[in-house]
Amino acid sequence: MKSFINVGPDCHFPIQNLPYGIFSTSDNPRHRIGVAIGDQILDLSVVKHLFDGPLMRDKQNVFEAPVLNPLMALGKVAWQEVRARITELLSLSLPTLRDDLDLRKHAFVSQNDAIMHLPAAIGDYTDFYSSINHATNVGIMFRGKENALMPNWKHLPVGYHGRASSVVVSGTPIRRPNGQTRPNDLEPPIFGPSKLLDIELEMAFLTGPSTDLGVPIPINQAQDYIFGMVLMNDWSARDIQKWEYVPLGPFLGKNFGTSISPWVVSMEALKPFCCANVSQDPKPLPYLQHSDPYNFDINLQVAIKPEDSETQTVICQSKFKYLYWTMKQQLTHHTITGCNINSGDLLASGTISGPSPDSYGSLLELTWRGTKSLTLENGSTRYFLKDGDEVIITGYSQGDGYRVGFGSCTGKILPALQLKCQMKGFYF
Amino acid sequence: MKSFINVGPDCHFPIQNLPYGIFSTSDNPRHRIGVAIGDQILDLSVVKHLFDGPLMRDKQNVFEAPVLNPLMALGKVAWQEVRARITELLSLSLPTLRDDLDLRKHAFVSQNDAIMHLPAAIGDYTDFYSSINHATNVGIMFRGKENALMPNWKHLPVGYHGRASSVVVSGTPIRRPNGQTRPNDLEPPIFGPSKLLDIELEMAFLTGPSTDLGVPIPINQAQDYIFGMVLMNDWSARDIQKWEYVPLGPFLGKNFGTSISPWVVSMEALKPFCCANVSQDPKPLPYLQHSDPYNFDINLQVAIKPEDSETQTVICQSKFKYLYWTMKQQLTHHTITGCNINSGDLLASGTISGPSPDSYGSLLELTWRGTKSLTLENGSTRYFLKDGDEVIITGYSQGDGYRVGFGSCTGKILPALQLKCQMKGFYF
Repeated sequence: MKSFINVGPDCHFPIQNLPYGIFSTSDNPRHRIGVAIGDQILDLSVVKHLFDGPLMRDKQNVFEAPVLNPLMALGKVAWQEVRARITELLSLSLPTLRDDLDLRKHAFVSQNDAIMHLPAAIGDYTDFYSSINHATNVGIMFRGKENALMPNWKHLPVGYHGRASSVVVSGTPIRRPNGQTRPNDLEPPIFGPSKLLDIELEMAFLTGPSTDLGVPIPINQAQDYIFGMVLMNDWSARDIQKWEYVPLGPFLGKNFGTSISPWVVSMEALKPFCCANVSQDPKPLPYLQHSDPYNFDINLQVAIKPEDSETQTVICQSKFKYLYWTMKQQLTHHTITGCNINSGDLLASGTISGPSPDSYGSLLELTWRGTKSLTLENGSTRYFLKDGDEVIITGYSQGDGYRVGFGSCTGKILPALQLKCQMKGFYF
Repeated sequence: MKSFINVGPDCHFPIQNLPYGIFSTSDNPRHRIGVAIGDQILDLSVVKHLFDGPLMRDKQNVFEAPVLNPLMALGKVAWQEVRARITELLSLSLPTLRDDLDLRKHAFVSQNDAIMHLPAAIGDYTDFYSSINHATNVGIMFRGKENALMPNWKHLPVGYHGRASSVVVSGTPIRRPNGQTRPNDLEPPIFGPSKLLDIELEMAFLTGPSTDLGVPIPINQAQDYIFGMVLMNDWSARDIQKWEYVPLGPFLGKNFGTSISPWVVSMEALKPFCCANVSQDPKPLPYLQHSDPYNFDINLQVAIKPEDSETQTVICQSKFKYLYWTMKQQLTHHTITGCNINSGDLLASGTISGPSPDSYGSLLELTWRGTKSLTLENGSTRYFLKDGDEVIITGYSQGDGYRVGFGSCTGKILPALQLKCQMKGFYF
């Protein structure tokens, strides 16, 4: 399968991928839906009239939306019709778009000229904790080897509600947070910039059709509510988190920013990379059991580029398929009480650590709680992030001669705001 | 101050109150903004042309919105202008509305004829844990008297992110959730309807103008971002919560439904009931200190009405002013890391328990973890909620000859869905 748009073998966006995103350009600030192909973007708002299939011919208005939510709400059969039509339109064999040079001039935008935006209006964001290696590592650090995994961990996909307002698109700078910490248990807490600023290598999925309050999603239907996936960095202030999180869980240590990649890779595009689920022992309760494979072979990588350096240092190579709980299990568990889902909810994996130390998905684990440093290629060392560090997460699935990729999810650390306490209760 | 609309001394909605809500009627399903006055609603979409003050004359379109968010986004000075104008229009002395019988016919709807809706599109919902009596009670039950309060509790307003999608307006039935619990620590977890379904008596505030990511709200400005308050019932499945919540906090035990009252009482209306803050020892860090009073004398009551009974039994009488942390402290703490706020975010108090056993705001505390039963007026007993129980929360501040009230926040428990595990992974 080839497109008339030129795509190299290492490019993340061949015709087999066709991820959706929201973009604008300097000469047209309107947010619109695009599909990445090679180094181009096909502007779906310009070619919406070409979606003349049985389901989409009356739904072309979803391509005029400034977010993916209306498209995602249409459901799986519509998604398949849209994807089949985009594949046709971009293929080398169909002349409709290929030979219409005037239409092509309006329909394609170079990715270099595009400003990417959040792909969806995210109603709710949930973060799971589904990597057994990550949960075990953190457990060993904080509770010792004997009690590493909590008793509930293998029975249900542990998760918590995150902050949706601070989910930002890749490239948005992240300001080091100020907050309350207690570095010394014998002294009162102190206030100031977080000293233990960390990354979390994650992936997340966006939900499709909405559900009604009170009605769970059965696990044999869960895949119909999963539209596609993004890369994610769940920035974490470990010192703030440590002091605040008992008993109600992470709050300010996580809510100052969560970055996601702009391109949403559909589950259709990931189908060829579906692989066996991780074997679960003990077997979970029946409402969480499914035998169809719903794991995906996606290579993940994290790099740091210090401010004064042109060189990225890869600090972690992991794989999505290490996750213990599947996305179907996460979604069914989330809704089993009757919790409703809206189109465009974001459900994240939790930190994706693999079995080997170079596959750990957080600096907390990579430096083993700050006890051993990482050396970057410019000679500097890291325990946690420094101001000016740019973190670059990338990911792709390798096909035969092509890659289905996610592009990248990046963010650069800005120094903390200097908050002056001039008098009681005042600052700035 | 009197209105030409008749209002009795016990009515929650005199001209001193003027709470905002979203309503529709059977003959006009459009969601529109109203203000409660006596047993009537003034439809602001009908009288929007009368808002001709310096700020509002160009912003009358906010009264056409189906939610309060655009009005709340305008900020404090605009809110004051709107309130002053509504007060004028409803007053006995101004003829504009009083004597325009044709306009009155269109502008007023009886509350009996109105269907109330969620007052705002809630972007994010956060729940605090700010009652020292509640936190102490729960601490004693689960950790013993010596370690009742966690070390962080008096240093920061502990809170967590809740689920926004399942926040519903008063009157919406709540289905008893199914879920995973582990009643016996020596045996594997089981699946089924929650047996320990509970209430949480709370109040919450809705935020005004949005803020930018990375920029905290200083405590001396926090009041400018607080639009108004509602009653809230944060339904909780204690057995689900107990098994899931370590280490990442409450999740499914809380996300199946959160009820709020339809009427949002503005902070302007509550000003006469402002009272002294609770004294805090130790003093919190300077970013959380404020000396201006921002506590409110609001009487709260919870009643249960069993399905087969016409009689409500009051099970709790508490007061908002018992809370240890102020709403200003909650909001400033929430944003201190740079977490951004959107108009219409919901920030809740946590369970509001007072010092005496009849003021505890949850059945968990009222029955002391199910060790002593409550007897209702129809002779039946309760440890936790039964199917068919209706829970009615009410609240008001008592003025001299008038009440500024919140109306009620109600919800009735529907039986759990019968989920059949016919084969692995299937149900319904």
